[in-house]
Amino acid sequence: MSDPRPIGVFDSGIGGLTVVKAVRDLLPNEKIFYLGDTARVPYGGKSATTVQRYSLEMTEMLLGEDVKAIVIACNSASAVALPDLKKTLSVPVIGVILPGAKSAAAMTRNRRIGVIGTLATIKSGAYERAIHSLDSKIDIVARPCPLLVPLIEEGWLDDELTDRVIARYLGPMVREEIDTLVLGCTHYPLLADVIARFLKEKVKLVDSARNCATALQDLLDRQSFRAPAGSSGGLQVALTDAPDHFLRVAREALQLEIGEVQLREVLHPARAL
Amino acid sequence: MSDPRPIGVFDSGIGGLTVVKAVRDLLPNEKIFYLGDTARVPYGGKSATTVQRYSLEMTEMLLGEDVKAIVIACNSASAVALPDLKKTLSVPVIGVILPGAKSAAAMTRNRRIGVIGTLATIKSGAYERAIHSLDSKIDIVARPCPLLVPLIEEGWLDDELTDRVIARYLGPMVREEIDTLVLGCTHYPLLADVIARFLKEKVKLVDSARNCATALQDLLDRQSFRAPAGSSGGLQVALTDAPDHFLRVAREALQLEIGEVQLREVLHPARAL
Repeated sequence: MSDPRPIGVFDSGIGGLTVVKAVRDLLPNEKIFYLGDTARVPYGGKSATTVQRYSLEMTEMLLGEDVKAIVIACNSASAVALPDLKKTLSVPVIGVILPGAKSAAAMTRNRRIGVIGTLATIKSGAYERAIHSLDSKIDIVARPCPLLVPLIEEGWLDDELTDRVIARYLGPMVREEIDTLVLGCTHYPLLADVIARFLKEKVKLVDSARNCATALQDLLDRQSFRAPAGSSGGLQVALTDAPDHFLRVAREALQLEIGEVQLREVLHPARAL
Repeated sequence: MSDPRPIGVFDSGIGGLTVVKAVRDLLPNEKIFYLGDTARVPYGGKSATTVQRYSLEMTEMLLGEDVKAIVIACNSASAVALPDLKKTLSVPVIGVILPGAKSAAAMTRNRRIGVIGTLATIKSGAYERAIHSLDSKIDIVARPCPLLVPLIEEGWLDDELTDRVIARYLGPMVREEIDTLVLGCTHYPLLADVIARFLKEKVKLVDSARNCATALQDLLDRQSFRAPAGSSGGLQVALTDAPDHFLRVAREALQLEIGEVQLREVLHPARAL
């Protein structure tokens, strides 16, 4: 059995395209409808209540596109909104936290894992809970890194200033002897090389984008939801505000084919009636 | 004649408290109702259309508080939304751009002015237009500095990394021999000392917060809108999302007395009926 409907992917902005890239590489036959909430980006500094409300609105817009499954390609939204969405949505939904946590728990040798992300993600404790549900003896060192997203959006990917900010954030984690680091924000894979250079070979990186794509593959297989074998796949991008220069940065860094970008106004349910 | 009603002040977030501080110092008898759109902060990277829509919603919420005048304590919103709001609002409204432009045009000796701000403010060209309306022979060097707000919100105010980012942004402007620099974002006064240290005595700083307070004083005097002489004044703060740690940073840096912070949900007009 197969299902030709698209997979819905949403993020607070454009960072979730790292997940799209991983899904396109792993599941080239699938159609993807990507929705970025650029009118309200970022989610990472906002309260759980607000991020939950925004996430519900994004998933409702995706359901309007007749998607067969939803991927929350945003750590902040996965951290605080996934449990409720799992209960209420009529299609299966996965986030980026559990796939990353599983991979980290499997990779660590000394049971000391570092997690970096936005303020909202770190404050939620979602990675701690997910990792401890797999192995309660793992020590976790978590740190919010609010400057990394703006540095990435500025395009300073290979830059001495970015190296210094990374050293400031990660130095103390290395001194605490982590052997595995979870990149707990979908923007961060764009800095994976720079982070790896700082950590040398001592710490392994967990890229939540790639792990999320694998989890999606498992989900589709389990539910016989894969696209028909011969179908061509594709990517459609919609944003809630006009794209800025960061879309170009991401497109080039990820070498993603993005056609025309649609604009969608965010409406409150009562107004959308 | 006098008017005891409060002055409404809005900003995309908490940065506008620098304007509140300047107004409190200059007009201690006035009541201020401050509204920060922390649920959708920042405005600085978003499109003009979206910032206009948000600004309209913020001013409608302030009118619900029976304010006698509105201050747009946000450069991005002043840059793109002020002209329309001036036409449609039933109370006088001022922004931060024209007061800053007037001050800069009066201060420059060599007629070379630098302007820094968010992407939205710089892209709008609002400072160029305002300065050229006063003196068309002034040369303007404008540059967006998207990392400064995150650095301020991280609390790295007196920090070697912030010094380096400032040198990166301002170095080329100094080489273009500006003698005056407009701090075109209401967050930036929190970095005024660091910026002044980099510029040494060669470049004078224009702080839009202080100039905006003076413009407000003129407006109230012109319209006989000042609070009664003996009244005690005060500050009430409402935000559209729960305050994060930056409220503490700002409160301490500005030494502002902020009582209990109210939360207001942003509603679309159709839903608010």
